[in-house]
Amino acid sequence: IPPPSLPLLGSTLTSLMFTCLLSSLIPLLQIDHFGFFEDGTFKQRYLVNDQHWHEEGNPILFYTGNEGDITWFCNNTGFMWDVAEELGAMLVFAEHRYYGESMPFGQDSYKDAKHLNYLTSEQALADFAVLIRELKKTVPGAQDSPVVAIGGSYGGMLSAWMRMKYPNVVVGALAASAPIWQFTDMVPCSVFYKIVTEGFSRNGADCSDSIRKSWSAVDNVSSTEGGLKWLSNEFSLCSPLEKEDVLVFKAWLQETWVNLAMVNYPYEANFLQPLPRWPVQVACTYLQDSSLPDAPLLQGISKAVKMYYNYTGNTQCLRISETATGNLGYLGWYYQACTEMVMPMCTDGVQDMFEPQSWDFEAFSEECYGRFGARPRAQWAGTVYGGKDIGSHSNIVFSNGNLDPWSGGGVTQSFSSNLVAVVIQDGAHHLDLRFNNNYDPSSVLKARALELKYIKMWIEQHSLSNKAAAPCCL
Amino acid sequence: IPPPSLPLLGSTLTSLMFTCLLSSLIPLLQIDHFGFFEDGTFKQRYLVNDQHWHEEGNPILFYTGNEGDITWFCNNTGFMWDVAEELGAMLVFAEHRYYGESMPFGQDSYKDAKHLNYLTSEQALADFAVLIRELKKTVPGAQDSPVVAIGGSYGGMLSAWMRMKYPNVVVGALAASAPIWQFTDMVPCSVFYKIVTEGFSRNGADCSDSIRKSWSAVDNVSSTEGGLKWLSNEFSLCSPLEKEDVLVFKAWLQETWVNLAMVNYPYEANFLQPLPRWPVQVACTYLQDSSLPDAPLLQGISKAVKMYYNYTGNTQCLRISETATGNLGYLGWYYQACTEMVMPMCTDGVQDMFEPQSWDFEAFSEECYGRFGARPRAQWAGTVYGGKDIGSHSNIVFSNGNLDPWSGGGVTQSFSSNLVAVVIQDGAHHLDLRFNNNYDPSSVLKARALELKYIKMWIEQHSLSNKAAAPCCL
Repeated sequence: IPPPSLPLLGSTLTSLMFTCLLSSLIPLLQIDHFGFFEDGTFKQRYLVNDQHWHEEGNPILFYTGNEGDITWFCNNTGFMWDVAEELGAMLVFAEHRYYGESMPFGQDSYKDAKHLNYLTSEQALADFAVLIRELKKTVPGAQDSPVVAIGGSYGGMLSAWMRMKYPNVVVGALAASAPIWQFTDMVPCSVFYKIVTEGFSRNGADCSDSIRKSWSAVDNVSSTEGGLKWLSNEFSLCSPLEKEDVLVFKAWLQETWVNLAMVNYPYEANFLQPLPRWPVQVACTYLQDSSLPDAPLLQGISKAVKMYYNYTGNTQCLRISETATGNLGYLGWYYQACTEMVMPMCTDGVQDMFEPQSWDFEAFSEECYGRFGARPRAQWAGTVYGGKDIGSHSNIVFSNGNLDPWSGGGVTQSFSSNLVAVVIQDGAHHLDLRFNNNYDPSSVLKARALELKYIKMWIEQHSLSNKAAAPCCL
Repeated sequence: IPPPSLPLLGSTLTSLMFTCLLSSLIPLLQIDHFGFFEDGTFKQRYLVNDQHWHEEGNPILFYTGNEGDITWFCNNTGFMWDVAEELGAMLVFAEHRYYGESMPFGQDSYKDAKHLNYLTSEQALADFAVLIRELKKTVPGAQDSPVVAIGGSYGGMLSAWMRMKYPNVVVGALAASAPIWQFTDMVPCSVFYKIVTEGFSRNGADCSDSIRKSWSAVDNVSSTEGGLKWLSNEFSLCSPLEKEDVLVFKAWLQETWVNLAMVNYPYEANFLQPLPRWPVQVACTYLQDSSLPDAPLLQGISKAVKMYYNYTGNTQCLRISETATGNLGYLGWYYQACTEMVMPMCTDGVQDMFEPQSWDFEAFSEECYGRFGARPRAQWAGTVYGGKDIGSHSNIVFSNGNLDPWSGGGVTQSFSSNLVAVVIQDGAHHLDLRFNNNYDPSSVLKARALELKYIKMWIEQHSLSNKAAAPCCL
């Protein structure tokens, strides 16, 4: 079972006033920025919109693409579109290597460990840095444009790291729902599932208790042939559940609750699935009595699950092989989690509503080696990206929603006046990067305003430093 | 003809009160920090002296080794030994991969482009970062020790970059004579040889003019068999000069002047060669009349050259294949210059005293490809290390001697109160890193005092930040 995926960013399309254009400038980037033996290049895809960018030196908002097709990000990062006019900003969305169409070795990119070797965050950051420098050199009027990195989820981690590692290239970064501390020895491995659980228990202890009790209920019911049939029928599964599928079935339920927690938005949205507003609350309406016997308890679970997978009423049957985070980039993220993005996760069934599962690095390493021929390095992310010692950096805003399970690995306290944390009450996974919506809680409106204020400040700083005649002092 | 080598740091041994101990902890480092296909490890050599390090949390001064055997650095970086007691500091000297005994693939390390692939500054910095974290984890009492990076020449570049890229690992850096701007499009390619020339012309215009005129004098004289014989005899060459060696002969003379300029120290020293105090001044005593005809002009050149190669009087004959920068690490540095450390150099014969030679990147690239099977990437260093846009960094002191040709590519103006440039009047290549000496000009004493002040400040900052209860603000 792979580690939880960082979901792709999405948003209801409330505006169709924009177009994502494929740039005609396709830069040839080094496949290996950090070595000279592999001297091949590849085409990185990136999208541009400059409808509001009229003046020389105006800013560029640069989306640091994460694990998926960049078109998706371009069409779904409402915040950038919402602020583009006010900033007179050019929008650029750069695709992460090994995702979408940016394949270093074409169809062979995922072939084996040798071809996957260049799928790392460091290489992706270097791609972004080279691309930005290339843009500034070639786009007329962009030479002195300040560039602000923006991203959500893993893309938010990349934004923050972009500012940390390439402050010469980006003047600042908005890192939304970026769990840069979800690594070994930084936060307890239990924090993620604990927050998932809290998302349910705030709708009544019976809600999370029902889920906590459901695991043994599944075990009990699935122990007989009749029970398996009953489960298949009750959950409208496309393929009848077999005895050996029970673990997968439970993993599928678990990931469903995780996804629900992440997309617990205050309005109807179609992110991972079309969902009602406050979907966790809706799910919990079916989970009001945790003292029920197994069968009726599981009937409630089934209703909650169907709310997630069949809100539209158009889904014929459910597939436990699909959790609908989209298969976009799934394999690539699995590889990344198996190499440098090692994010320990564990459950205890007490602080959280899941079956107890400790973090077993050795087993994980074996699994990764079997799957990819590569082994994880648990300490590397902390060494290269600073772990908790990031206080010397500047011009980064970290935003986190308190409902978002990934906030447990995020930066939720400010370090200084230019290394700032914003916590969004009632916010799920990168709510702030979505388009403005009438149902937005005031917390997210405030967060967006603050983010915009910081972005303006970084732009202003840049134009001041450009005007300074010479370096100062001594 | 390879690019000018960055010389190794050296010093007269004025003190024998120290010992460089090979640490018993030999960490196994990843051969490739940035990819997971090559999963091999190698032993990095590092030396430790903790005679003054008695208290838990005391600082560590960490020499970021450059292109040579680390024992050499340990025995010759007087500054670190001079300040160790006052700071109660542990001294660590880490060897750069592919130099000395730190060979990733043993005897095969230099075999071909495939084996040389991991010889980059980024990998070396990652080695240092991993080593420091390992030391802090394993050395009792070092867990909260602030680490200050120190280095000279390429080692100084590594120190500065260490602070820029791993501010979580080092609290500050002293980058002595570090030409971090000697890259494409940062400074004029002519600046290096111009400063070499100034070192001679400050001892009278006739001195540099004599050298400027010597090239055609060599051409004239070497055009006959008798002239070649005369030159071989006059310069006491070990092998008689052949017609086809004349270019090599002139390159040898040129490198001799460069080396003299770099080691133009105010006292007798044995760095590249045993030399008198102010060796350029001594050389210039033989070059007082640039209007002389070819033969007597070249006799003066010969005397100056012999002062460099035979100050002791023990040298029997001179070899034009040896310029005595030591062959230590020569090949490795050549590879680095041929890949990411591309340092454009040019001469015009007007601003400088050398034969005009433009910078020809294409020819250089061909030469590198022929030699190593790898091609230089001229823009990469600027992208990855920030070029001139380093103003957002902190806690780095850049020191440069105004006599040092490498100062042309160095940072000689401060950016802010914690990104500071120190220019040492009458200082040659990293004079400040050498032991205190009675003949030291006051400028270098002041520089060392200032450097110590900053190092103390960074250490102090670190202990304050460790004491802060929690992150601040918002």
